[in-house]
Amino acid sequence: MKIVQIVKERGPITGEQIADILNLTRATLRPDLAILTMSGILEARPRVGYYFNRRSANTLVSRAIAKIRVKDIKSLPVMIRESLSVYDAVVTMFTEDVGSLIVTNEDGYLAGIVSRKDLLKMAIAGGDLQKMPVGMIMTRMPNIITVTQEDTIHIAAQRLLNHQIDALPVVRTYIMPNGDERLEVIGRITKTNIARLFVELGEGGMDHT
Amino acid sequence: MKIVQIVKERGPITGEQIADILNLTRATLRPDLAILTMSGILEARPRVGYYFNRRSANTLVSRAIAKIRVKDIKSLPVMIRESLSVYDAVVTMFTEDVGSLIVTNEDGYLAGIVSRKDLLKMAIAGGDLQKMPVGMIMTRMPNIITVTQEDTIHIAAQRLLNHQIDALPVVRTYIMPNGDERLEVIGRITKTNIARLFVELGEGGMDHT
Repeated sequence: MKIVQIVKERGPITGEQIADILNLTRATLRPDLAILTMSGILEARPRVGYYFNRRSANTLVSRAIAKIRVKDIKSLPVMIRESLSVYDAVVTMFTEDVGSLIVTNEDGYLAGIVSRKDLLKMAIAGGDLQKMPVGMIMTRMPNIITVTQEDTIHIAAQRLLNHQIDALPVVRTYIMPNGDERLEVIGRITKTNIARLFVELGEGGMDHT
Repeated sequence: MKIVQIVKERGPITGEQIADILNLTRATLRPDLAILTMSGILEARPRVGYYFNRRSANTLVSRAIAKIRVKDIKSLPVMIRESLSVYDAVVTMFTEDVGSLIVTNEDGYLAGIVSRKDLLKMAIAGGDLQKMPVGMIMTRMPNIITVTQEDTIHIAAQRLLNHQIDALPVVRTYIMPNGDERLEVIGRITKTNIARLFVELGEGGMDHT
């Protein structure tokens, strides 16, 4: 770790110079340098010296992130029925303090999703929000972006960003006797989950190895 | 790296067993095992064998994250004047497609912040939004949580989570001739920035070492 630190700060640097700094002989350092070079953490150039391989260090971080799955950090879904009024949806959003509500049909399966943005648009447009069902204004299946429990959080974050959405329902697919598919909602992933994971990773507190 | 993989999967495991798997002699492996143990990546217990030290691997990730600063990933601020009407603030929020607007006073310094949630609350409450200035409903200084360019993203993410807010103004402090402090807004950090950074880290694409 000390060698890596020295090479990071002063590289390119020769083996002799590293040995001098650490008050060791070149021979003592040889196995350490060999392993750091073989593992790709350091690179060695003849007549130049050792330098730090940033790409390899980045790989360690990206590998750690690639292992975290939706099921590891998902939140409970906050759900409403599609017959609920837009006004009651706004009230639910405030009482539950969430940015998106997942909308289910009368059988309890995923029907749509409604965001703070959708509700703000309706509220500013006027009209009787108490009489308008949320099913009229929600984003409806099959236009809803979802994830499964086994998807990585990396994929979930990409979907949130690429589709510019606030929340992803975590779903499980059921095939009905007639062959139709139904999605059961078992969680949600938001940018808050991603930010919380980021903070945990920064504290070294999440076992993601 | 191969040794680490083997110990991770099968640890605790003896040096002989690792040598067998790799088709090497115990003597050949000795320097590698010594370095992996000294660096804290593996731990060795007498009569038990080597096992993988998750805490140490986590440290690599948390150190990488600890180095990323607000200035590395901040977005441009989207700002309005406090005399603007609530109605026009909602319109600006939609045209700029942001979740929060930073509000400045007539001198251009930070005065407040207004979120989609604040605006939704006003819209649902009724009243003439065209006549109500946004300054009346915004969260006002000194209750605004901010960051500076030099703060780490880790701190920024913690503030977003702890205060349950959507956006942080990135500010620079000016001391006026009379001793008063004024905050100039030079950027903003949202959970979207954090999610984008997370995706970049996952792709090994950000130089954060």
